[in-house]
Amino acid sequence: MLAEIITIGDEILIGQTIDTNSAFISIQLNQIGISVVQITSVPDNISHITEAFTNAENRASVIIITGGLGPTKDDITKQALCSFFNTKTVFSSEVMKQVEFLFTSRGLKMPETNKEQAMIPENCVPLKNSYGTAPGMWFEKNGKVFVSLPGVPYEMKNLMEEEIVPRLKAKFKTPYILHETVLTQGIGESFLMEIISEWEESLIKENIKLAYLPEFGKVKLRLSQTGENFSELKEKAERKINELIKLISEYYYGRNEEKLEEVIGKLLKDKKMTLATAESCTGGYIAHLITSVAGSSEYYLGSVVAYSNMIKEEQLNVSKSLLDSEGAVSKPIVEQMAIGVQKKFNSDFAIATSGIAGPAGGTEEKPVGTVWIAIAYRDGVFSQKHLFGKNREKNIKQSSVTALNMLRKILLDY
Amino acid sequence: MLAEIITIGDEILIGQTIDTNSAFISIQLNQIGISVVQITSVPDNISHITEAFTNAENRASVIIITGGLGPTKDDITKQALCSFFNTKTVFSSEVMKQVEFLFTSRGLKMPETNKEQAMIPENCVPLKNSYGTAPGMWFEKNGKVFVSLPGVPYEMKNLMEEEIVPRLKAKFKTPYILHETVLTQGIGESFLMEIISEWEESLIKENIKLAYLPEFGKVKLRLSQTGENFSELKEKAERKINELIKLISEYYYGRNEEKLEEVIGKLLKDKKMTLATAESCTGGYIAHLITSVAGSSEYYLGSVVAYSNMIKEEQLNVSKSLLDSEGAVSKPIVEQMAIGVQKKFNSDFAIATSGIAGPAGGTEEKPVGTVWIAIAYRDGVFSQKHLFGKNREKNIKQSSVTALNMLRKILLDY
Repeated sequence: MLAEIITIGDEILIGQTIDTNSAFISIQLNQIGISVVQITSVPDNISHITEAFTNAENRASVIIITGGLGPTKDDITKQALCSFFNTKTVFSSEVMKQVEFLFTSRGLKMPETNKEQAMIPENCVPLKNSYGTAPGMWFEKNGKVFVSLPGVPYEMKNLMEEEIVPRLKAKFKTPYILHETVLTQGIGESFLMEIISEWEESLIKENIKLAYLPEFGKVKLRLSQTGENFSELKEKAERKINELIKLISEYYYGRNEEKLEEVIGKLLKDKKMTLATAESCTGGYIAHLITSVAGSSEYYLGSVVAYSNMIKEEQLNVSKSLLDSEGAVSKPIVEQMAIGVQKKFNSDFAIATSGIAGPAGGTEEKPVGTVWIAIAYRDGVFSQKHLFGKNREKNIKQSSVTALNMLRKILLDY
Repeated sequence: MLAEIITIGDEILIGQTIDTNSAFISIQLNQIGISVVQITSVPDNISHITEAFTNAENRASVIIITGGLGPTKDDITKQALCSFFNTKTVFSSEVMKQVEFLFTSRGLKMPETNKEQAMIPENCVPLKNSYGTAPGMWFEKNGKVFVSLPGVPYEMKNLMEEEIVPRLKAKFKTPYILHETVLTQGIGESFLMEIISEWEESLIKENIKLAYLPEFGKVKLRLSQTGENFSELKEKAERKINELIKLISEYYYGRNEEKLEEVIGKLLKDKKMTLATAESCTGGYIAHLITSVAGSSEYYLGSVVAYSNMIKEEQLNVSKSLLDSEGAVSKPIVEQMAIGVQKKFNSDFAIATSGIAGPAGGTEEKPVGTVWIAIAYRDGVFSQKHLFGKNREKNIKQSSVTALNMLRKILLDY
């Protein structure tokens, strides 16, 4: 069973709005065994919209349309729907009641312009929008379903969950689509491919599709399957994922939507241990990742962002003579930083980073992208040198996730 | 001049990846007078990809394609391009050199699979990708341009800016599309609308379109115009923007792509003054924003991320009795934090934050979203209480930009 998503609105095509609706809709459809075959974004233009409807009808059985349902003049999706279905709008007292209720329940008088929202194409079933004035609209044509939804994300989401998904499930019997994702850090896509090539080969006869999704120092591996029996799909995925994890245990840190900072938080909480950080090149980004997790105050004490050498000396007790002889981006300095903040905050663990994020500051010996990372624990300190790329943002983010993963590995064995 | 964007990859169609590339590309094309007529997302499927190329060719003169260029088996855009242009791949020693350099410059041995990256369609001009192994590829056919770019955002962005935009500008003469954006902080969209409604009305007869773009504590106001004479458009925009800034001077902080952290960096550099930060609820995010600016080490000394009360006492010299009586989220504590880090780091200015980011930790008196922010300067300290929302990420980010803007206002008068 195939679907197409059509998002309507000039704001998408001029880059003002990033289309986040399509990803939400895709996930919802996937969960009931409907695959999205194309996502098409078109401007507020009637002939272009109807052309998109016609093309979608040739590719898919379910067409989900969002946007262009506001009461203002630039919103013309309803006109396009009437033109496509060769019909006209009629007044719906059911919709009118709901729109009036939205205003009266907030003690407001309904502006006249909103009467227009109760005019809907004659051939549609209106679907209740609990949060806004534009109803959802359900059309059927030659066994195919067209659904028109408002573009406002929380209105659209509510309609998808409350109305569209249940109706699609009732109408179509579809196979299951199962996606399972394995998360890795510390290895590039092509190196990973070399390690798992034989395993990847074995997926073919199991009818599992594999995708590599790289992202700032991480690579996600996604296994996708379609079938009639959910528990069979699930069992097969788990079996293959267990084989995979054995091959890449060094880099594997989690599954699906799990975040590295959450994995670490869980480990620290379980062990009732605390963490502090001393950041130079990452400039607070590690602290930000850790504190973006709700409840992190249970195990995270804080950070010294030591951007200047003077602060490294004064606050982290880093030796001035070593700073002079070795430079701030060096093994002894990053280790002293980690130990310094660990002592200062009396934490069980400490992460320290020192590197050249760029674009300036590189030398032949220490080019931009050179980053030292240290992890201090109660009975020692471990450090590693990394060489990332030339891009400042990437260096900051890749250093941060690399540091988190170094800590994770130490925590696992602790 | 019309363009179509085609994004390729199953990860988009199953909702795992939100397509942010298209918005970036649209903005870049708009700036050189090219309008995007459609955005099409298709799966990793050769016949579907080539069908999308054919349809795009009928609508647009410039076709920008992203994704599906990795060295792994699921990436098939190059095959689709060969099929569409009826050609084959050939070895490019120019691309090979660049790919090898990416690995050797990081001290890594290139995996064999990457040789595949140097095989490119015979009819294309390869474009240098400074950050990844997949080159950009430029094709021309019957006066139309096809460009294939990697899907990794920072690789794609660099190629757009360094290669594609200059080449498109050289090839096509197009009318100007001028977007000028005015940046505000500290006022909501609807309140802003009330203040500038009369001014907004006056844009109609000037043929200027206005868009409101809200984002975590900031609202961007974009003025858009199209025309043949660039200096006329520019003059008109500047005149209207000067009128606008007078109305909202309290909230206005910059223009176009300027970032608040850059504005502050410039002010500090000009005054040869230094900054330190003490962060509780923002957890390092302010430090991250400041250090994301290249060259920030000239004025930024560092931060104490004081996530626990113990660290606030020990590291920032905050009074234990005041912590007990007033709580960490209070005027005296946030002021002591600012003064504490200013003294500790001997900086000219200091920012401190203390608040309840949520979701837990709120009380009736201090609900989630309550945030105290202080700015210390050489002869005093200034603090303000804010009440943001219930969302943790939003509270962290909105507190951070609010703090930066408080510092900016003080710097302006200093």
